[in-house]
Amino acid sequence: MKAARLHEYDKELVLEDVPKPEVKGPHDVVVKVGAAGVCRTDLHVIEQVWRGTLDADGLLLPYTIGHENAGWVDSVGSAVSTVKVGDKVICHPLATCGVCAGCRRGEDMYCENSAFPGLNVDGGYAEYLLTNERALIKLDDSLEPVDVAPLADAGITAYRAVKKAVPGLQAGSSCVVIGAGGLGHIAIQSLKAMCPTEIIVVDTNPDALAMAKEIGADHVVDGKDDPVTAIKDLTGGHGTHAVIDFVAEHGTTVTGPNMIRNGGTYYVVGYGGRVDLPALQIIFSEISVVGSLVGNYTELSELMDLAAAKKVTLHAQRYSLDDANKALDDLHHGRVRGRAVLVP
Amino acid sequence: MKAARLHEYDKELVLEDVPKPEVKGPHDVVVKVGAAGVCRTDLHVIEQVWRGTLDADGLLLPYTIGHENAGWVDSVGSAVSTVKVGDKVICHPLATCGVCAGCRRGEDMYCENSAFPGLNVDGGYAEYLLTNERALIKLDDSLEPVDVAPLADAGITAYRAVKKAVPGLQAGSSCVVIGAGGLGHIAIQSLKAMCPTEIIVVDTNPDALAMAKEIGADHVVDGKDDPVTAIKDLTGGHGTHAVIDFVAEHGTTVTGPNMIRNGGTYYVVGYGGRVDLPALQIIFSEISVVGSLVGNYTELSELMDLAAAKKVTLHAQRYSLDDANKALDDLHHGRVRGRAVLVP
Amino acid sequence: MKAARLHEYDKELVLEDVPKPEVKGPHDVVVKVGAAGVCRTDLHVIEQVWRGTLDADGLLLPYTIGHENAGWVDSVGSAVSTVKVGDKVICHPLATCGVCAGCRRGEDMYCENSAFPGLNVDGGYAEYLLTNERALIKLDDSLEPVDVAPLADAGITAYRAVKKAVPGLQAGSSCVVIGAGGLGHIAIQSLKAMCPTEIIVVDTNPDALAMAKEIGADHVVDGKDDPVTAIKDLTGGHGTHAVIDFVAEHGTTVTGPNMIRNGGTYYVVGYGGRVDLPALQIIFSEISVVGSLVGNYTELSELMDLAAAKKVTLHAQRYSLDDANKALDDLHHGRVRGRAVLVP
Amino acid sequence: MKAARLHEYDKELVLEDVPKPEVKGPHDVVVKVGAAGVCRTDLHVIEQVWRGTLDADGLLLPYTIGHENAGWVDSVGSAVSTVKVGDKVICHPLATCGVCAGCRRGEDMYCENSAFPGLNVDGGYAEYLLTNERALIKLDDSLEPVDVAPLADAGITAYRAVKKAVPGLQAGSSCVVIGAGGLGHIAIQSLKAMCPTEIIVVDTNPDALAMAKEIGADHVVDGKDDPVTAIKDLTGGHGTHAVIDFVAEHGTTVTGPNMIRNGGTYYVVGYGGRVDLPALQIIFSEISVVGSLVGNYTELSELMDLAAAKKVTLHAQRYSLDDANKALDDLHHGRVRGRAVLVP
Repeated sequence: MKAARLHEYDKELVLEDVPKPEVKGPHDVVVKVGAAGVCRTDLHVIEQVWRGTLDADGLLLPYTIGHENAGWVDSVGSAVSTVKVGDKVICHPLATCGVCAGCRRGEDMYCENSAFPGLNVDGGYAEYLLTNERALIKLDDSLEPVDVAPLADAGITAYRAVKKAVPGLQAGSSCVVIGAGGLGHIAIQSLKAMCPTEIIVVDTNPDALAMAKEIGADHVVDGKDDPVTAIKDLTGGHGTHAVIDFVAEHGTTVTGPNMIRNGGTYYVVGYGGRVDLPALQIIFSEISVVGSLVGNYTELSELMDLAAAKKVTLHAQRYSLDDANKALDDLHHGRVRGRAVLVP
Repeated sequence: MKAARLHEYDKELVLEDVPKPEVKGPHDVVVKVGAAGVCRTDLHVIEQVWRGTLDADGLLLPYTIGHENAGWVDSVGSAVSTVKVGDKVICHPLATCGVCAGCRRGEDMYCENSAFPGLNVDGGYAEYLLTNERALIKLDDSLEPVDVAPLADAGITAYRAVKKAVPGLQAGSSCVVIGAGGLGHIAIQSLKAMCPTEIIVVDTNPDALAMAKEIGADHVVDGKDDPVTAIKDLTGGHGTHAVIDFVAEHGTTVTGPNMIRNGGTYYVVGYGGRVDLPALQIIFSEISVVGSLVGNYTELSELMDLAAAKKVTLHAQRYSLDDANKALDDLHHGRVRGRAVLVP
Repeated sequence: MKAARLHEYDKELVLEDVPKPEVKGPHDVVVKVGAAGVCRTDLHVIEQVWRGTLDADGLLLPYTIGHENAGWVDSVGSAVSTVKVGDKVICHPLATCGVCAGCRRGEDMYCENSAFPGLNVDGGYAEYLLTNERALIKLDDSLEPVDVAPLADAGITAYRAVKKAVPGLQAGSSCVVIGAGGLGHIAIQSLKAMCPTEIIVVDTNPDALAMAKEIGADHVVDGKDDPVTAIKDLTGGHGTHAVIDFVAEHGTTVTGPNMIRNGGTYYVVGYGGRVDLPALQIIFSEISVVGSLVGNYTELSELMDLAAAKKVTLHAQRYSLDDANKALDDLHHGRVRGRAVLVP
Repeated sequence: MKAARLHEYDKELVLEDVPKPEVKGPHDVVVKVGAAGVCRTDLHVIEQVWRGTLDADGLLLPYTIGHENAGWVDSVGSAVSTVKVGDKVICHPLATCGVCAGCRRGEDMYCENSAFPGLNVDGGYAEYLLTNERALIKLDDSLEPVDVAPLADAGITAYRAVKKAVPGLQAGSSCVVIGAGGLGHIAIQSLKAMCPTEIIVVDTNPDALAMAKEIGADHVVDGKDDPVTAIKDLTGGHGTHAVIDFVAEHGTTVTGPNMIRNGGTYYVVGYGGRVDLPALQIIFSEISVVGSLVGNYTELSELMDLAAAKKVTLHAQRYSLDDANKALDDLHHGRVRGRAVLVP
């Protein structure tokens, strides 16, 4: 089958022919890839940002990247009971064990024995992908793989952060979303569907702000124009109840916490910068800083329900698998609106 | 001033002239009534349903009923600091003490030293009303007393029940609202604003069901046509995650709990019937039965925010104060759409 | 191997020799039984109380009962990775699938494809038991199967109900436990370990009350002496914050809800009677009625941690497997203190 | 009356005679001081650490410090209904308004119109203190002012942080307390009373660690000996579920977050240092940093219940009011065990 593979860090992917993956274990499933999202993390993998974590011994290469996958079940292991050949599915990014403490609590991200296709085993920039039964969610008839693939990772990452914030976002509250890109535009729609908070979006890109308004932002703020003062002005001087920061670099880790009112929360989802606060500010304003990481299977199921109900719609830009390098290059240079998707 | 007062149980109210109430305590406030909602509880008061509770010694008569009030501050006690003469306000139904354990936790309904104007002291079927500072919420410029008065009681009662249900109503869930009348139509709009659940409305009145669809119900079910089977059919055979029962008589306390899936909750807001379930059903389906009573000050504030944001709109039918008895009669005979409101 | 099997409803078990169970599926595990708890549910099975549910077609007989099991791993399926032969384990009562929605949320009781050894397949009144990997929790070195087997079902059932109640049981609160038998004595110790509430135990058996005092009850009340008044007296007239009813028959479903203060909760765990309340009482006192059913894997793990820390100790009475019928007879006639346990 | 007053920053207090405070407003209460706790914040006030916040215009001096007060009601305003002359009381540190949004939610610390006796108006280093009705909690017969005064501030500050942590501290979890001084020793006892977590105490003072063991710590760790490694060793390499940091300076804001397992929380109560973390660590380990500030009235009530039940006992060292400067000096030089208390 065809695959776009990483042979050397900091180099382009190589389009090549490799053997189609095969079911080995009783819960294995091979998925015919219908679409694979192109994610900033893919750039980070190529640039070795994660090398210490993902490829400590430098033995991973060459392999196929791509961790936002959806498609159709192609073949199944002997013990698979919940999907059958031909089913239309989205793949939770982790193939988990189901028997460790994390899995038992429903927190897939804490699985102690998982594979992460596209990060530490072959992923979805290919015609076929090997994962397991526990990763698969059947798609509603109304949804196609190409419409939802990036929700598998970008989507649940935004959704989980929103879900954490929602209990604090009653009527009369406000929530600031920093960054209206691939994750942020899912977050805005999720907030709109899940609570009555006033949504304020901060971004430095006018196009992103315009899109934010269209999909539900109540106010938009140019991140270049003293956003802390702007948020104070919009909230009667009190600051906002929550900030969800999808950027977390280029200064947002400083401005973000300063936008928050007493008792509010700063949710960290992006990861380039540092959060550096005096303990005195943390206690005197009684604020919280809360990290959020991807999301679990139940959260991806819920997001699929929002998608099927047309409450969350992905804004996607299609590329053929052959153009994987072009898609990565466009992403790198800010030429992608919404989310790039590879179609084999 | 003019007031419509109850002189004898089971009789019409008497329109008469009485002295205007006066501020006595330091936190007292007299409100010029702008609108007073007409509530089924007013009928119950007249019919002595509450007599054992409200008027144990039969010494309350004559007095002015009306517990859903909004208007303008007319005069204030010496220690009042948060409202001033002329302010446009809605009145939380209870005038609470602020120093008991219930008040300290923010649960006004549990105040140990409260007055309930319209139930145990003079209420709002009059030109002026005596309450206290702790009961008052300033209205947004965009809202008028006549638009919101019934939200003071009917509204927060619906809102509090919805707020209790919302944490269990994630994407992919459903919620059944039994009764699309004065409370139910606020509940439907609140659910729509506060969570992504699928809203199913059960009522026996076709007009009520038509209105329910208009304001956000995803499905409507005629309560006369085996609603349990209808709900099972709409939920893939599993039953619904929550039922909010604004009727709780005429059989709904039997059908309601039977609509619920394993682990679901039956919220009781209406109060004519009995909830009678085998313990075996309660544990085997692991269901909960949860009572909900009016609502607290914070909840009324939040509901005012929903109203100001046009996410909750009251459907009101106006009467002059002189027509108080006609309004009550219309309510009694099912001739009111939405909620009746008296305007002095 | 030897097994005590049910051949006919309402008859004694038959001690007989049957083939040892064998691993078939990749996640199967055979456990050498170290101890099997004798539970009132076993009596109910024999008496056909559950026949409609468990054995609708009457095809289950003959089979081996016993659903509270602990022992040592004897053999494992090909895909088993978390336990190995010789490991000392307790068995969660359900062998679950790990891929349905219930399992994905960590709620084993809601598994859509589970087996329940001792109820719908062969159980632990035998020398060996077939279950699966997902059911097994390794025991701490300090615990032996005979010390903990009944915690597998009676224990987590008590623990889950307590865990639901704990968030409402802050300092200054009280909690009534109705029934200080096999489940109640675990609940009392769990409450003691998990929150600072004042524990009040109601039972009609003086020996049970004496034991309750020894293991942590702050007050005990004879259930035959107007317990509602007694609880009101012990709580300054307000009633208690929570009642956990392990009896739920013989009148406790009437007295239980009447012991509760405004805003309190009545937890139902026993299941002989009916809960029959006026909706008016439910809303006016704003009480909740909450069912609780067995418990999930994580809850059993937590209970094992309490047992290893000596915060929960089972009071057990041992019988040889050959005396299974005697143990059941003793339980039936109230001659068991704490919990009966069969040792093969 | 006699009072120890601050006339100049960075100088000793002046013992002098001043007029006894008098009731002015309807809810005012004058309390005859029975005991006043001596707090590190008093040192900070004297050293002008808070000057920008508390005394922006430098107009506060001279005034009486002391914000941890208990005693007996001496006189009451006209509208006071819940306490009477002679009642034994502890004073919540804030005299709040009861009508702002913060008060309405029960969060006294967020009151928009409060006085803070001892910080921004005259406090309790005196024979009498002016506060208001909303600040007062009646003491159980078994408690005396001198036994509990420091619980008014140090106590609820520790208690609130513990109460925030408890929902995450199930059986099998661990919690690290950094700093076993005035606040820490209340936290250890509160944790013991409120949850089954394993308590690990880190301090650099051997006496503090010895006391920690006596009052309930399961493990103690010398903060000078690589506490991160010690905590990892005590928790099977995973790290701990929660850290409550009462120091938050001298390096604990670095070691604290590094002790935490995936999904865990770092509670900040102390305030000398900075919390400086890479966003990548926050999201990759999905940790939270949660500030905690003093506590509300309900929390102080609950703490009084723990004290009356002898579950929390203050370790106090008494000084006469005349020795206020000596007490402050002893505190400054680490010569106080537990908490210093002034008795007029």
